[in-house]
Amino acid sequence: MKIRYPNGKKYEPVQEVKHSKKINPSFSNRGKSLEDELNESNEFYLSRSIAVIHKKPVPIQVVNVNYPSRSAAKITEAYFRTPSTTDFNGVWNGKYIDFEAKETKSTTSFPLQNIHAHQVEHMKSVSAQGGIAFLIIKFISLDRYFLSPYDIFKDYWDRMTKGGRKSITLSEFETTSIEIKPGFMPRLDYLKIVSNFYEIADVNNERQE
Amino acid sequence: MKIRYPNGKKYEPVQEVKHSKKINPSFSNRGKSLEDELNESNEFYLSRSIAVIHKKPVPIQVVNVNYPSRSAAKITEAYFRTPSTTDFNGVWNGKYIDFEAKETKSTTSFPLQNIHAHQVEHMKSVSAQGGIAFLIIKFISLDRYFLSPYDIFKDYWDRMTKGGRKSITLSEFETTSIEIKPGFMPRLDYLKIVSNFYEIADVNNERQE
Repeated sequence: MKIRYPNGKKYEPVQEVKHSKKINPSFSNRGKSLEDELNESNEFYLSRSIAVIHKKPVPIQVVNVNYPSRSAAKITEAYFRTPSTTDFNGVWNGKYIDFEAKETKSTTSFPLQNIHAHQVEHMKSVSAQGGIAFLIIKFISLDRYFLSPYDIFKDYWDRMTKGGRKSITLSEFETTSIEIKPGFMPRLDYLKIVSNFYEIADVNNERQE
Repeated sequence: MKIRYPNGKKYEPVQEVKHSKKINPSFSNRGKSLEDELNESNEFYLSRSIAVIHKKPVPIQVVNVNYPSRSAAKITEAYFRTPSTTDFNGVWNGKYIDFEAKETKSTTSFPLQNIHAHQVEHMKSVSAQGGIAFLIIKFISLDRYFLSPYDIFKDYWDRMTKGGRKSITLSEFETTSIEIKPGFMPRLDYLKIVSNFYEIADVNNERQE
C-alpha cells in the first residue's frame, strides 16, 4: 500500500516500522527511494563513527487515540503536517549538518515547488548560525544525484521569487552543483562532497579575510 | 483529552497542531510543560538569531490512511514508536546542540528509567563527533530545572548499569549539574548555561593539551 501526503509525495510506511526486516544486501539499488539510500548511508556513517545524522520523523498531528487493554495505544485519527524544517540533520566532525532530500521524475529540471518557503528560511537561519545547509536532489530516471549547497541553491530560489523560472535545470545542476556518484558503502557518500566543497569555501574565506 | 505513550508518558496533541493559538502571554508559567517552555525559549532564540534549535516530531508508525475527496489525507491507524534519538537538536554559533528534556514529579530524585539506553548511546556518539549533548531535567513540584552535560550524566548512568542506584538525587543535581533559573524572555535560557559550562571546559582542555 502506498500512502501519499496531501502534496502527492509518496510515503513509505516500511521505513517507519520499528523492527523492520534487514535491508536486502543486493548490489542493485535501482528502485530504492532517495530516503532509503540516505538512511543506509547515514547508518554506515554512524557505524564507522564518521557522523551522527538522522532523518527526522514525519510530523503528524494526532487527534484521537484508543487504549485497548493489553496492547499498544492505537492512533485512530491523525493528519500529516507540513514540515517546518528540513528532513535530515546531525553532527559531523563538530559541524552541524542540515539538508533536505528530494526526488524528481523529470529528466530535464527540478521543480522548486517541491521545496517549501519555510524550509528555505530554515536553511538560511542554519547557514547564518555557521551550520552547513544543502539539498540533495535525485533525478530518478537518470539515476543521477546532485548536492546543492544552500548558498548556490538560494540564487535559483531568489530567481523564482523575482518572477523567474520555477525550476532548476539539469544543466544548471551540472555546472553549479556537485554530482554525487553512487557507490556501494556508503551508497551516497555525500559527506565526501561536503568535505571537499566546504574546505574550498573555507580557503576562499580565509583569502578574503 | 490526554494521550499517553505505551510507557505512560503524557502526549500533548496541542503542541502538534499546525495553526495553534498564540501562546497566552501570561507571566505565570506554572503548569506549563517543560516541552512548551523549551519550545518558547527556542522560538525566542530563533527570532533573535541566537540559535536554530527545534523539537523533533514524535515518531509515529503509520499503518493506514484514508483519502476522502476534497479533504486532507486522514491517518486511521498508527502507533507511537520509541524515539531512537533525543528530543531537541540544532545549531548555535556553529556548534551542534543535542539534548533530551524530561520532567519528574518526584521531589527527591530523577528516575533513570525515563531515559532510554539508545538515547544515551546517541548522546555518546554526538559527544564523540564534537557535538554538545546534555539533558534538561525539571522537578515539577519544586519548579526547579537542571542542565546535566552528557559527560556528567553518563557517570550516573554507568553507576546504574553497574548495579547502583536507578536515579539521580536532587542533591547530586545541585552539586554536579547546573541549575537553570527560569526567567521571562527566554523562559529557560539554557544556552547561557551551555555557554558558561563549555567555555570553562574548553579552557580546561587547552590547559591539558
